[in-house]
Amino acid sequence: MNILVLGGDGFIGSHVVDQLVSMGHEITVFDRFPYRTSRNLEHHRGGIRFISGEFQNRNDLVKALSEKDIVYHFVSATSPAESWNDPLIEVEESIRSSIMFFELAVRQGVKKIVFPSSGGTVYGPQNLPVDENTLPRPLSPYGIAKLTTEHFLNYFRVHYGIASDIYRIGNPYGSRQPVMRPQGVIAVWMHEILNGSEIQIYGDNTTLRDYIYIKDVAYLMSHSLINLMSSDVYNLGSGVGTSIMQLLNIFQQVVDIPFQYRIHEKRPSDNSSIVLDSLKLMKLFPGFRCQKLEERIEETWTYFKTTFHKT
Amino acid sequence: MNILVLGGDGFIGSHVVDQLVSMGHEITVFDRFPYRTSRNLEHHRGGIRFISGEFQNRNDLVKALSEKDIVYHFVSATSPAESWNDPLIEVEESIRSSIMFFELAVRQGVKKIVFPSSGGTVYGPQNLPVDENTLPRPLSPYGIAKLTTEHFLNYFRVHYGIASDIYRIGNPYGSRQPVMRPQGVIAVWMHEILNGSEIQIYGDNTTLRDYIYIKDVAYLMSHSLINLMSSDVYNLGSGVGTSIMQLLNIFQQVVDIPFQYRIHEKRPSDNSSIVLDSLKLMKLFPGFRCQKLEERIEETWTYFKTTFHKT
Repeated sequence: MNILVLGGDGFIGSHVVDQLVSMGHEITVFDRFPYRTSRNLEHHRGGIRFISGEFQNRNDLVKALSEKDIVYHFVSATSPAESWNDPLIEVEESIRSSIMFFELAVRQGVKKIVFPSSGGTVYGPQNLPVDENTLPRPLSPYGIAKLTTEHFLNYFRVHYGIASDIYRIGNPYGSRQPVMRPQGVIAVWMHEILNGSEIQIYGDNTTLRDYIYIKDVAYLMSHSLINLMSSDVYNLGSGVGTSIMQLLNIFQQVVDIPFQYRIHEKRPSDNSSIVLDSLKLMKLFPGFRCQKLEERIEETWTYFKTTFHKT
Repeated sequence: MNILVLGGDGFIGSHVVDQLVSMGHEITVFDRFPYRTSRNLEHHRGGIRFISGEFQNRNDLVKALSEKDIVYHFVSATSPAESWNDPLIEVEESIRSSIMFFELAVRQGVKKIVFPSSGGTVYGPQNLPVDENTLPRPLSPYGIAKLTTEHFLNYFRVHYGIASDIYRIGNPYGSRQPVMRPQGVIAVWMHEILNGSEIQIYGDNTTLRDYIYIKDVAYLMSHSLINLMSSDVYNLGSGVGTSIMQLLNIFQQVVDIPFQYRIHEKRPSDNSSIVLDSLKLMKLFPGFRCQKLEERIEETWTYFKTTFHKT
């Protein structure tokens, strides 16, 4: 199958590339590659095709979309904290640019789009866990834009017949997670510890997150390859709620460097508690079990220690 | 109370103005008034304040918003048919311009925004009737934009404390409904009959609409004045499903001019069947009953016959 991974050099994108390559598929990665290198995909050099371009540039995109069966869309220019005070950023950089991409994908004959939505922000405050039939009540511009983009995918499916799978992902963690963005507390804490900084903890035991190992995310998203004509929405989380204090406990067991921390109140832009009922997707992978948080945090810590001098 | 009605010269807006004036409130109307006259509000000249301006012009809006407690937002530049093939119209003219208005309303100290959403397009295909807890599945860019704007109102409420009531209105009909827009089949048919044209019928008995008399809509939307601090979402329909053939039967009984009709297949951009369970709102008006479709269609026909030479 001829697969395009937009933003394939990023955190989730590069792990999906690893997964799909391991399954024998033809992969093209489209990303900005600011220094004409792709550190996260170095190990695939020669094995996959790279196209460097801007997501907002129509000509760059048209070239990348040519003759692709399915496109994984991991381009993301926003975060919940960044747009909390500026919702028009989401309208421009998330909703508008995704619609322009969907229009081009239809014109280029793409059969299916795979879209990573946000389990942590689409639902808003709810009784937990939430499943795909829960009425979404997003609060942040980021979550609103993700849900709106989901709806537009549905419109393009009905109007033009292009299929789409939507994965509402929990809190992914693991190697290659950016440490300088305000998303991904596990990577951010590890980076602070390696820098000798005090780690900053926002919230308390009442705030739950649904951490899921990035390789589990990538594996489960390969489901979209099975049927290029089907469309659906899936929660993609571990189903386990972990509080920030439980996470701190795991860090205290795993991290072999002493570190300080400071506890702050929850910030207004912080997402609500989230635990995702992901049974709809899990049932499609009989026997699959999500990897254990404690073990994979240890592996992630080893990764960040090893790569720290390069970051 | 100091009330601003944006788009107060239009179909729904002008009936809401009638209602609020009859309740003794101070009304300011903001509209484009292209010929420096307001036909729909002529009877209020001297009694209410008019501000002429463009919704997309910040300076015009700031002036209108000054010292207002509550704003009814009836400005609408799009329709389901118009944006069916051009979703970016909705992003620009509906989502983006509403967010810019909400930001100004917050800055000007407005306490509450009243927003007419679309019962006919927000839900998409569903088992009927739908209530406010039904999971929305909008198909059209128009319906997606209405739902997205609802979510952004929620964001502005949480972030800045500005209250908002959202009314998901069914298919309103009655005097002053525009006859040249592709929304409002009752007005469009009456205009075609008065023009001596054949009326064009799309769909069949399987497509249901929830017609509600415009004066009922205006009366029920006055609920928002009771509590300027409360926020909620309400369906606003009659709760009765009427097929296009039932509507034709009523026309055949009421209309005292012979007319021809032609039946076509449903168009792709036509909304799904809709019947709104509006009990949540109706319960707030004990003893209230929606007016009868047959009787109010007769009254509407008399209105269009009387005003036809002016249109």
